[in-house]
Amino acid sequence: MNNDTTISPGKTRIGWIGTGVMGRSMAGHLIDAGYAMTVMNRTPEKAKALVDAGATLVDSPAKVAAQSDVVFTIVGMPDDVESVILGDAGVLSAIQPGGIIVDMTTSRPSLAEQIASVAAGKDVASIDAPVSGGDVGAKAGKLSIMIGGDEAVTQHLDPLFQLMGQTIVYQGGPGRGQHAKMVNQTLVASGMVAICEALLYADKAGLDLTTTLKSVSSGAAGSWALSNLGPRIVAGDYEPGFFVEHFIKDMGIALDEARRMNLCMPGLALAHQLYQAVAAQGHNKKGTQALMLALKKMNG
Amino acid sequence: MNNDTTISPGKTRIGWIGTGVMGRSMAGHLIDAGYAMTVMNRTPEKAKALVDAGATLVDSPAKVAAQSDVVFTIVGMPDDVESVILGDAGVLSAIQPGGIIVDMTTSRPSLAEQIASVAAGKDVASIDAPVSGGDVGAKAGKLSIMIGGDEAVTQHLDPLFQLMGQTIVYQGGPGRGQHAKMVNQTLVASGMVAICEALLYADKAGLDLTTTLKSVSSGAAGSWALSNLGPRIVAGDYEPGFFVEHFIKDMGIALDEARRMNLCMPGLALAHQLYQAVAAQGHNKKGTQALMLALKKMNG
Repeated sequence: MNNDTTISPGKTRIGWIGTGVMGRSMAGHLIDAGYAMTVMNRTPEKAKALVDAGATLVDSPAKVAAQSDVVFTIVGMPDDVESVILGDAGVLSAIQPGGIIVDMTTSRPSLAEQIASVAAGKDVASIDAPVSGGDVGAKAGKLSIMIGGDEAVTQHLDPLFQLMGQTIVYQGGPGRGQHAKMVNQTLVASGMVAICEALLYADKAGLDLTTTLKSVSSGAAGSWALSNLGPRIVAGDYEPGFFVEHFIKDMGIALDEARRMNLCMPGLALAHQLYQAVAAQGHNKKGTQALMLALKKMNG
Repeated sequence: MNNDTTISPGKTRIGWIGTGVMGRSMAGHLIDAGYAMTVMNRTPEKAKALVDAGATLVDSPAKVAAQSDVVFTIVGMPDDVESVILGDAGVLSAIQPGGIIVDMTTSRPSLAEQIASVAAGKDVASIDAPVSGGDVGAKAGKLSIMIGGDEAVTQHLDPLFQLMGQTIVYQGGPGRGQHAKMVNQTLVASGMVAICEALLYADKAGLDLTTTLKSVSSGAAGSWALSNLGPRIVAGDYEPGFFVEHFIKDMGIALDEARRMNLCMPGLALAHQLYQAVAAQGHNKKGTQALMLALKKMNG
């Protein structure tokens, strides 16, 4: 990393791998700010909006890396992260010494540590920087970005993070961004169990659900999820938001890490199992609030 | 009930039974507004502040009822509610026809229905109106009041509710206020499991807890409890707030009702069990955030 070179649109070449719902909006903010970008996606059609905005499309992570100073990745699963960064035609096969990799996928903390270690051997910095805030936060540039890795590198990258996020917090060394995201998902998981059970109870007890939400949304039981997803559940709207299959992946990572750390997390384990039922009922591509469908079916 | 008589300080005589942390503040607002009040508490010393403010102290629910047009009760457990209202020297033994009983204890919905039914036989109206918002909300007159019973009676009582609450919502017939409160407590229960597990994970993963809260408090994982009780847990402050033993009572009521309604609530059942561990460890008089102590002990 050239610590003497401040990041700026005129000088810094950006690489972007992963142009799904999240990545597309986030990369778009960098292009809008004037950054030159090389982009790659498994399904190239999904990169079209960025190419139309001026990005150069290539067909491998290595080709992105060869033309970039800072390479962002935000792909699906930890295996995808591993393949895209550590694989044969991966970012680390072609990125120049002094380059920076920023993985914004929600992925395994241990993988983030491994990538940082391999990268360091090539004089490349690696940062894990998963996000929270969904498609809405990505579009608005108001994500929460949880950052692990070298602190000086994190500060160096700040002009880029500022274009994508509102709550940008350095959490510590490699993997600590991912761990913070696991904390986030643990909160979301039992929170969704709470909301769906509570609304099911309300329904069974003969309460009007919208009137019930009026009583419980603003006090000690209130939450972002209740205010934002509660009304969607009441309206029978189970569109994503955030996909069930991605959430199950996240909870699985957190539970794997908990096992590794010798930590009992019964609430998260229960939520994970209940979401397995959501998946078993064919709702992998619905939003996380589809937990309500599984609880309803379970109750006749 | 005299529908032609609007409630006002000059005309309406208030009775108040139960002057604990919540009741004391709530009754105080009515005295401050100029209402004449007859008050009773199992431990009379706890009524001193109200007596000093002008209330008349008596020694039985019947004596309160004999001198009051509207009698409020906010006591500990459902058995206390039953004894105070339906017992031999209870409110219903002495209240005049046209009187109104308002039970603000968090209690069994089925008991609220029973009281309303017995009261109706004596030409007395009965309202269930449990609250959320804790001692802070009670002091500030900003409680959420969840109301079940006759809607016209509820409207009649509005001048009194307005002195105690900010979110005053009519939920339906007898018991529906209690059911709404059960919804509230269901949300709080799994929410606390989420918060304590998440902070325990963060600690085990080597994250700084205050820095972690910065990342997760304002986004999709955010909640009233996380913002208000999270920092107390991080500071090792387990003072009540809301007593563990009262919360266990509330969850027990909700689970009893769920069983009666043939409804499976695995998240609430888990929370209830974990709080049994909190109680088993001697923390009945601590605040609900003391769940963290049980999870820590469980994990060595």
